[in-house]
Amino acid sequence: MIRALVTALLGDPFSIVNTIGLIAFALVGAAKAIREEFDLFGITVVGLSMAFAGGMTRDLLVNRIPLALQSSTEIGLGLFGVGLAVALSAVLPTPDTHPITLVSDAIGLAAFATTGAIVATEAGVSGFGVVAIATINAVGGGALADILLDRSPFILFDDFYASCAVLGGSAYWGAVSVDAAGGTAATACALVTVGTRLAAVTYGWSLPTMQTLQRR
Amino acid sequence: MIRALVTALLGDPFSIVNTIGLIAFALVGAAKAIREEFDLFGITVVGLSMAFAGGMTRDLLVNRIPLALQSSTEIGLGLFGVGLAVALSAVLPTPDTHPITLVSDAIGLAAFATTGAIVATEAGVSGFGVVAIATINAVGGGALADILLDRSPFILFDDFYASCAVLGGSAYWGAVSVDAAGGTAATACALVTVGTRLAAVTYGWSLPTMQTLQRR
Amino acid sequence: MIRALVTALLGDPFSIVNTIGLIAFALVGAAKAIREEFDLFGITVVGLSMAFAGGMTRDLLVNRIPLALQSSTEIGLGLFGVGLAVALSAVLPTPDTHPITLVSDAIGLAAFATTGAIVATEAGVSGFGVVAIATINAVGGGALADILLDRSPFILFDDFYASCAVLGGSAYWGAVSVDAAGGTAATACALVTVGTRLAAVTYGWSLPTMQTLQRR
Repeated sequence: MIRALVTALLGDPFSIVNTIGLIAFALVGAAKAIREEFDLFGITVVGLSMAFAGGMTRDLLVNRIPLALQSSTEIGLGLFGVGLAVALSAVLPTPDTHPITLVSDAIGLAAFATTGAIVATEAGVSGFGVVAIATINAVGGGALADILLDRSPFILFDDFYASCAVLGGSAYWGAVSVDAAGGTAATACALVTVGTRLAAVTYGWSLPTMQTLQRR
Repeated sequence: MIRALVTALLGDPFSIVNTIGLIAFALVGAAKAIREEFDLFGITVVGLSMAFAGGMTRDLLVNRIPLALQSSTEIGLGLFGVGLAVALSAVLPTPDTHPITLVSDAIGLAAFATTGAIVATEAGVSGFGVVAIATINAVGGGALADILLDRSPFILFDDFYASCAVLGGSAYWGAVSVDAAGGTAATACALVTVGTRLAAVTYGWSLPTMQTLQRR
Repeated sequence: MIRALVTALLGDPFSIVNTIGLIAFALVGAAKAIREEFDLFGITVVGLSMAFAGGMTRDLLVNRIPLALQSSTEIGLGLFGVGLAVALSAVLPTPDTHPITLVSDAIGLAAFATTGAIVATEAGVSGFGVVAIATINAVGGGALADILLDRSPFILFDDFYASCAVLGGSAYWGAVSVDAAGGTAATACALVTVGTRLAAVTYGWSLPTMQTLQRR
């Protein structure tokens, strides 16, 4: 585990953000499942689903066998995140709404928007394709976790959550369009996503509906 | 947008029906999201999901990168449909149940049953595969839109809706089996699907359950 | 149908368990849809979805066109299972909770865990990939059927159900790791899955939650 982390942290941008995203989202998914009193198998399934579902959907869309099914490192990172949530739940009263979990969620969102944008750009899809795959990669895991927890995934679209991934993916595409290096584009995507998400949580951002627009 | 429309309308059968289907289903999905008081981002997501989810599932099943992620025209057509719904919502009191929306829905269903049948036939799947992919292409977008709107997708099976796509796909396969030209098969599929759907809406068609059969 | 069955029963391990799984799960899915008073089209869709969704997801994950869309035999076997459920519903008061259906469900679970493990091993994924694909293949159909029936798929994780497929897939991977023949690994996987599932139903097995662990 330690070796995988060190290798990842010394590696290319994709490995670094992918490692961070897997641990962060596995922690968040497992924390939600613990709150809902799932059994240990359920906690593991929801944690791994949240960590892997977005990336697997991304890999399906660009037509390759999901990385998570080919590597043993990835599953280890996911289980490490699940273990962190179990350890946290022993010391914190409400792990799923604790700032550690909220910040982990924002970090996971940013990490997976970035890996999605990187893979999509390599696959040669259109600008819209890059933004769409970045967003699907970022919110896919949370959407599946919510379905497994018997909650509606549409809450993801209810506040300023998926929008952050759209902005991050657009930043990536913008940076690539002006010939920025891959690392610069990845950094821009990650910072825009995590920044807008944390700002949205802090200030309670939301978008207008047609009904509020018409009332004005 | 105009140029894309003109090109499409002068193009091959696939482009024509695909263009019509994208605009029609984006309009229907966005109209439903407006009724549920989604914000502008949610309206766009539900509209684009309804327009693209069926075709993306189809492309995954025949093992190719979804067209919608490679072309910029497609996303433009989807956004045009979303814009139509927003414009309609400003002038109509209940855009989601207005005849314009109901007819758009039937047209989208027919258009995507047809594009599904065309792509499946080109991929060389079995007769059942053609009908299955035509149906999945036709109803997949509506099913995802319903999940995002926190409604059960089983309403697709509750009245005579998916059945119309099954009949249309079967008509396509029947026409291909007797060596009809591609354009003839596509026309047969589109007419059977839209015709049965409009008849089902008009006359309130439904299929029997085991319980009603046993009561007889 | 008879010929397809005979061919399958004389054929390779994959065909045998695939045939058994398709009929068993189509029967279970259709029985559930009959209980919910779905119409005949809905019964067929839920039955075929339960029979085919797991295998189609598996095929997507290993990047090939789903078998079910290429073969006409497969769909015939699925329709045969749906027909069995319709026939059973005419003679049994509650077909969906009858021991025939519960045993069919355990058999289908074991059959699809086995076909999933076989295909995943052939595709050359990691040990975790084999267990994950075996589990997804085994529970994917039931999860989609539950969504179509407007029930939460998470009940699949609530009792000792998916865990049986995890154990079966692990048995397959263990057998392959010690160089057992394909037939031996497949037999081990099927027996472990069906055995643990029937034991779980009989003795009411369940896994602990974090809450029950902390109370101790």
